[in-house]
Amino acid sequence: MTTPENAVAALLDKQAIHEVVMRYCRGIDRLDFDLVRSAYHPDGIDHHTGFDGPVDDFVAWVAPKLRAIGGTMHHVGNHLVELRGDHAVSETYCTAAHWGGGDGIGMVDFTSGCRYVDLMERRDGVWAIAERWAVREWTRSDAGRLTVPESAGPRGRRDGSDPLDSASARLA
Amino acid sequence: MTTPENAVAALLDKQAIHEVVMRYCRGIDRLDFDLVRSAYHPDGIDHHTGFDGPVDDFVAWVAPKLRAIGGTMHHVGNHLVELRGDHAVSETYCTAAHWGGGDGIGMVDFTSGCRYVDLMERRDGVWAIAERWAVREWTRSDAGRLTVPESAGPRGRRDGSDPLDSASARLA
Amino acid sequence: MTTPENAVAALLDKQAIHEVVMRYCRGIDRLDFDLVRSAYHPDGIDHHTGFDGPVDDFVAWVAPKLRAIGGTMHHVGNHLVELRGDHAVSETYCTAAHWGGGDGIGMVDFTSGCRYVDLMERRDGVWAIAERWAVREWTRSDAGRLTVPESAGPRGRRDGSDPLDSASARLA
Repeated sequence: MTTPENAVAALLDKQAIHEVVMRYCRGIDRLDFDLVRSAYHPDGIDHHTGFDGPVDDFVAWVAPKLRAIGGTMHHVGNHLVELRGDHAVSETYCTAAHWGGGDGIGMVDFTSGCRYVDLMERRDGVWAIAERWAVREWTRSDAGRLTVPESAGPRGRRDGSDPLDSASARLA
Repeated sequence: MTTPENAVAALLDKQAIHEVVMRYCRGIDRLDFDLVRSAYHPDGIDHHTGFDGPVDDFVAWVAPKLRAIGGTMHHVGNHLVELRGDHAVSETYCTAAHWGGGDGIGMVDFTSGCRYVDLMERRDGVWAIAERWAVREWTRSDAGRLTVPESAGPRGRRDGSDPLDSASARLA
Repeated sequence: MTTPENAVAALLDKQAIHEVVMRYCRGIDRLDFDLVRSAYHPDGIDHHTGFDGPVDDFVAWVAPKLRAIGGTMHHVGNHLVELRGDHAVSETYCTAAHWGGGDGIGMVDFTSGCRYVDLMERRDGVWAIAERWAVREWTRSDAGRLTVPESAGPRGRRDGSDPLDSASARLA
């Protein structure tokens, strides 16, 4: 039965789960692999196109791919969560842009649509991914159309000097 | 006047309304038309490009169009809600990818930007759409650039065997 | 320490901050510059590619650029907020479509990916931007592919006659 108290508890759970997904995206996009790992329980499992296995192996597999290209942006939207006590199924829509990188590494300027289907678990009060399926829906080549602006202005960095890092430092 | 109690009540209403919009998207993308219908009150009205009328007629109009193509992904973002008791105006931004399908059905690989402007009503405690305007902003042809990956890996399905269905079954 | 009370207070703060970001987007996309201004404190600072300065100057700089083209849609997603009392750092992902406009004003049909990195402050109970970095990540030309539908149906307007305006009028 829904009471105001458990409606609020559900909202807090959904927000916590949503932040897990968003921290994953930030970690991938900023090459912060500790942050990526923190989105999973230590024994969490990931299923990607081309990979199935535990999170540590996933990070070892994905990190060099990300370092080989210029950047990524994993923009998420729709986040629907079904809660069942300390377990939940979370679905998140993602549109991911990929750009830049050297010759000979295959398609680099492309955007893909995927849905993250996650079995989430709360352990010791902390929600994280127990098992993830990164469901690939479509891929669009943006070859010849995608550019990274070169003029002055706020630019994304993946070496700890992003504007986000400077702003966060001013909070401290 | 905003008190902590009604601030929380407003947040719960906004979340409930947001989930209505997201269930509509999931229903459309998974061809789950009962879910689509559940986003509207039984006498709800929909205005789309090429359609104006009650929700049952909308579903009858849109279902064959969706079945004729390979898939869709309605990725939503900005969700601003103005609450007025049991009524609300909800605006949601959506970027929708469409792909695949047979010859002779017109443009199939395209992405469009729209805003869902919804008059929402709460009846018997349940928020749903009373009237919707699907405001089309732009359309981009992705012809020749959009592909559905064919290699192994988690893939979207619209026949009840999506990874989301498997994950949800594990919750039960 | 997190107690239920301050967890809820944090959620309310995050929602308030998210609405600041979304009101900015609505203001830009509907050419409602009072709404844009209201997202910033009166002495707020903005850093864009090609602009650094106070919000009033920012509005004076951006308004003619927006009026010269046919329309924009600033679709936001990932919103991660770090709260510290009356200060916060807010990061928001945005994918922005731009279309239409006359000859001789440079690239008009394009989409860009950016992140809004915002130092938010609460003053007299109101959260707003104290300083913003609009971090440009990528730009994609959609020349020759982006169109605005011309057939009948709900269409976006930037002159106060958008379907959102009509719907809001019905709430009153």
